Amino acid sequence: MDCLTVLYHLAASPADVAARAAALALEQSIEMPLAAVRSDYVREEIVARVADVAPLPAGGFRVALELAVETTGSEIGQLMNMLFGNCSLQDDVQLVDVALPPALLGAFPGPRFGIAGLRERLDAHGRALTCTALKPQGLPPSELAALAGTFARAGLDVIKDDHGIANQRYAPFAARVAACQRAVAAANRETGRRAVYAPSLSGGPRQLAEQVRIARDEGVGALLAAPMVMGLPTFAELVAAIEVPVIAHPALGGVSRIHPPLLCGRLFRLCGADATIFPNYGGRFSYSRELCVELTDGARAPHGHLRACLPVPAGGMNVARVPEMLALYGRDTMLLIGGALLSAGDELFERSREFVATVAAHGPSAT
Amino acid sequence: MDCLTVLYHLAASPADVAARAAALALEQSIEMPLAAVRSDYVREEIVARVADVAPLPAGGFRVALELAVETTGSEIGQLMNMLFGNCSLQDDVQLVDVALPPALLGAFPGPRFGIAGLRERLDAHGRALTCTALKPQGLPPSELAALAGTFARAGLDVIKDDHGIANQRYAPFAARVAACQRAVAAANRETGRRAVYAPSLSGGPRQLAEQVRIARDEGVGALLAAPMVMGLPTFAELVAAIEVPVIAHPALGGVSRIHPPLLCGRLFRLCGADATIFPNYGGRFSYSRELCVELTDGARAPHGHLRACLPVPAGGMNVARVPEMLALYGRDTMLLIGGALLSAGDELFERSREFVATVAAHGPSAT
Repeated sequence: MDCLTVLYHLAASPADVAARAAALALEQSIEMPLAAVRSDYVREEIVARVADVAPLPAGGFRVALELAVETTGSEIGQLMNMLFGNCSLQDDVQLVDVALPPALLGAFPGPRFGIAGLRERLDAHGRALTCTALKPQGLPPSELAALAGTFARAGLDVIKDDHGIANQRYAPFAARVAACQRAVAAANRETGRRAVYAPSLSGGPRQLAEQVRIARDEGVGALLAAPMVMGLPTFAELVAAIEVPVIAHPALGGVSRIHPPLLCGRLFRLCGADATIFPNYGGRFSYSRELCVELTDGARAPHGHLRACLPVPAGGMNVARVPEMLALYGRDTMLLIGGALLSAGDELFERSREFVATVAAHGPSAT
Repeated sequence: MDCLTVLYHLAASPADVAARAAALALEQSIEMPLAAVRSDYVREEIVARVADVAPLPAGGFRVALELAVETTGSEIGQLMNMLFGNCSLQDDVQLVDVALPPALLGAFPGPRFGIAGLRERLDAHGRALTCTALKPQGLPPSELAALAGTFARAGLDVIKDDHGIANQRYAPFAARVAACQRAVAAANRETGRRAVYAPSLSGGPRQLAEQVRIARDEGVGALLAAPMVMGLPTFAELVAAIEVPVIAHPALGGVSRIHPPLLCGRLFRLCGADATIFPNYGGRFSYSRELCVELTDGARAPHGHLRACLPVPAGGMNVARVPEMLALYGRDTMLLIGGALLSAGDELFERSREFVATVAAHGPSAT
């Protein structure tokens, strides 16, 4: 059978692991006892196989399953279901990696713009990109727009809504997007740059369609969306239907059950994210430096026909850490600093300029 | 401010917990340092408050946060984002419970049919309900339909697709739904009963709309959907737009660390699930008996205007366990037995009859 290979970490004892891996293979394919299967086709072509079991240095086992490509229906939701649907409910299993054969990979268009397309749109070449967030939620559109204008005049590339900003009464989507987009456009006319505003999308398919229409009418240059909040199939369909780059936010992505480099790196890219925000090491979150590097690899390393997805380390970052981050991640990266800029108070413009200048200074020498 | 109260378990030391709880309150509301907030409105009405911190018997702390209702935008995706968006990425936090004030609760219609509506449609009163799954995936529509017909003639109430059955080439949605629905309808004409077939929905909004249209045209009586695969906002919008009961499947529900009674009980009900499948204790999954009872309470105990959602314990169940399960859960329950019926081979009809008869026998005396 045509297979995808899926890696799991299993917390099992050496005595139990063979049986546990075999049970996992049934759980993630036919979900019934093998003895009750009467069809030869199902037994030979549909039942998942245990391809490998290897002990992990820290205990437990790495189990490789081969799943039949046919079971995924070449659709992202069903792919997730096959990878981790039922076994997400079993607390001894972690989903670590997946290798898609070319035929299945080919079914997913991936990012529409990717790193190259984002650079083109932002006219930002030979250096890392800069990003910040409009916050806090609770501010009215006029104050968010004032912040957006200041950031754009200071030279930021991407000014996104905080991911907590949705369609609340204090800043409804339509009024907010109009105000912020106009502020950024006005700043661009002043500076001659091409900063973009990325509003945060929320809600079900109907509300999303309405928000996308508003964003298009206002001429916004990018969008922010949380694939795990809206659901991966909804995210993938959204991305395929709109004409601007989409930045993925990791909200509701969890930390421990799906290996973050797989979820926020490879899978969000597979769904079409042009950029992916992730919690940087040494911030408010618990990702290690190694995990972050692996995540950026998943997002942008060559992978079939998929365009590269721009990694966006974030979460408690500040300007002092820019050189360290660029040394690690290289320039095909967008650094996101939010609260640390806003903490500058009356010096918001100057602090933002400093961020932009620090990144620009590292441009040519960065890896 | 008008608040919702959210309970988390925090793995923190007594010395750290106050600071950690305060940081969590910022993370789940304004996501920036409090000192950088210049708006009085935001400081007074939007910033989350730590309402209570109490040690847990097993270690760690129970932290109650008060979040401003306004921040949710009265929309399920944004509610999830406020409850657990960013802190799902912090591995010391578990989301345990939420209390919605009446104004917010009132924004969610909840189940359209609920337990009473399901009983009415199935003409099943005074006893628990029975459910089974068509499986394994890989069978063609004709064989799935033959199984569906056998189950319906044996007296099962709900015959659902296995959740792994999506829109694969070996059983495309349209052909499968037509065949299975006709088989169940034919059996109903024989038996005079009202068994329903519940096909499994998959894909993004466009594919979902097409599948719902096909199901309606074929006259199917219920639908199966996995809210965490399609995304809660997509699920909620779907439920509101269709005219048959919807059964929620917990697939991918374990990705984040959300207390299962909250996710599969209260939140799926809030999104409009008429029935909710969950992993029963003592099966292939790791849920305890206490957790299962708490989950059924969340699904069906009185809660504002919300109709009761039917709990559906499942996962490695068999007919011998029916009395034990009914004694625990009472009759406002639907028992789901899949593989153990199919394991009967040539005695599938008889084993299914036995299941139906065992449940019926416990009807009047069950709590």
